[in-house]
Amino acid sequence: MRGIRLLIEYDGSDFVGWQVQKRGRTVQGELANALCILLREDITPIGSGRTDAGTHALGQVAHFHTRSSAATERMLRGLNGLLPRDISIHAVDEVNLEFHARYSAKRKRYRYRIHLGKSATQRRYTWSLHTPLNIERMQDASAHLKGTHNFSAFCKQDPVPDLFSCAIFAADWRFEGRELIFEIEGNRFLRHMVRILVGTIVEIGSNKRSPEDVVHLLQDGRREDAGKTAPASGLHLLKVYYDNT
Amino acid sequence: MRGIRLLIEYDGSDFVGWQVQKRGRTVQGELANALCILLREDITPIGSGRTDAGTHALGQVAHFHTRSSAATERMLRGLNGLLPRDISIHAVDEVNLEFHARYSAKRKRYRYRIHLGKSATQRRYTWSLHTPLNIERMQDASAHLKGTHNFSAFCKQDPVPDLFSCAIFAADWRFEGRELIFEIEGNRFLRHMVRILVGTIVEIGSNKRSPEDVVHLLQDGRREDAGKTAPASGLHLLKVYYDNT
Repeated sequence: MRGIRLLIEYDGSDFVGWQVQKRGRTVQGELANALCILLREDITPIGSGRTDAGTHALGQVAHFHTRSSAATERMLRGLNGLLPRDISIHAVDEVNLEFHARYSAKRKRYRYRIHLGKSATQRRYTWSLHTPLNIERMQDASAHLKGTHNFSAFCKQDPVPDLFSCAIFAADWRFEGRELIFEIEGNRFLRHMVRILVGTIVEIGSNKRSPEDVVHLLQDGRREDAGKTAPASGLHLLKVYYDNT
Repeated sequence: MRGIRLLIEYDGSDFVGWQVQKRGRTVQGELANALCILLREDITPIGSGRTDAGTHALGQVAHFHTRSSAATERMLRGLNGLLPRDISIHAVDEVNLEFHARYSAKRKRYRYRIHLGKSATQRRYTWSLHTPLNIERMQDASAHLKGTHNFSAFCKQDPVPDLFSCAIFAADWRFEGRELIFEIEGNRFLRHMVRILVGTIVEIGSNKRSPEDVVHLLQDGRREDAGKTAPASGLHLLKVYYDNT
């Protein structure tokens, strides 16, 4: 058996998300189809984590095991030829069989793009906002996120109890043309966490909350006290970090 | 009567082009619909020029005349609210009645984006190419374009004879990440001109032609001797220049 790692870009607009579901087109499902045709094996690639419907990835990582002896270069070309236009593979690498896209991941980096105004060409990849935003207040709020905190206020409540502690290494806002861009890097992220953080920080940027609200939310941890969930379309999984990468 | 100028961005993917046609969705048609609802007048806005099906614009300009006394700021908000998501208006300005989006235009700037490899998120806005390209040869070829030349070799042949002389002020290639980007500025452009130029220069970049071919094509002027027409999806109308802009 060989372990294979894929580096994947996708446009999440027309998917119900990463993970195979009873209904709807998924990235994992399309990859499984292409791998089945290419390698003639039933393979379900394991991703570094799920992404929501509409969320994009520039650097999603997945792994699978195969009996095939095909060269990784041939897999790269074959997969790009077989996969639909909204999924592209940037690298195929052989890894040892212990490598696991999810459990071996050390850190992840997400980008959230807000477009100030309406943009015809960026609409699929941004959250279009028409309210003035104070980036200094947003940056002040984000500074409180760094370090290890309980993010239960910034997590979609699931019936299954979860560990809410996450370590955040970077969380910064910047302007790029008519876009306001948030990048956040952490050891793990909870369900909807980046989107709820962005929704809350936008409320701070439009003076509906104070930057210190974030401190209280990290202490108290009630979802209903945090802001709205920002749209999935603005969210991009940028990079997953492993040892030796 | 008042003269009004619009600065327009659109995603050309789902249009049959700028200009109203017997069948199919057009940018001009959508604008006419929105203006009719907003100003209660039959208005067909005049663009600076047509764009092909699939071609995008970041800075298309159009004008129209109206009896309405509505403030330009209200028109801006109203149009953005009424127009579909793949058209956005960036500015609405009052201009004098002599202003004509096409005849008053002094220069235009186009961008053509080539993506090296497959890209899931940029596929609608680029030409995806898998062949290695030598950017120095492409830059050498483009240097010959500057100045005033006969571009009949780089023009889709129409039954109507046309003036083929165009003055080119800038024509340059650059890398941006995994993209190879061409920008060209001129006083006027013929039908399919930028796309045929790009198709020809890509053949030069992949060693199928020499950079000096461009010199001969500008002298001889036969369409069948130039290269293929590059796909519309990579082409973006960046900016139209007028006096005082």
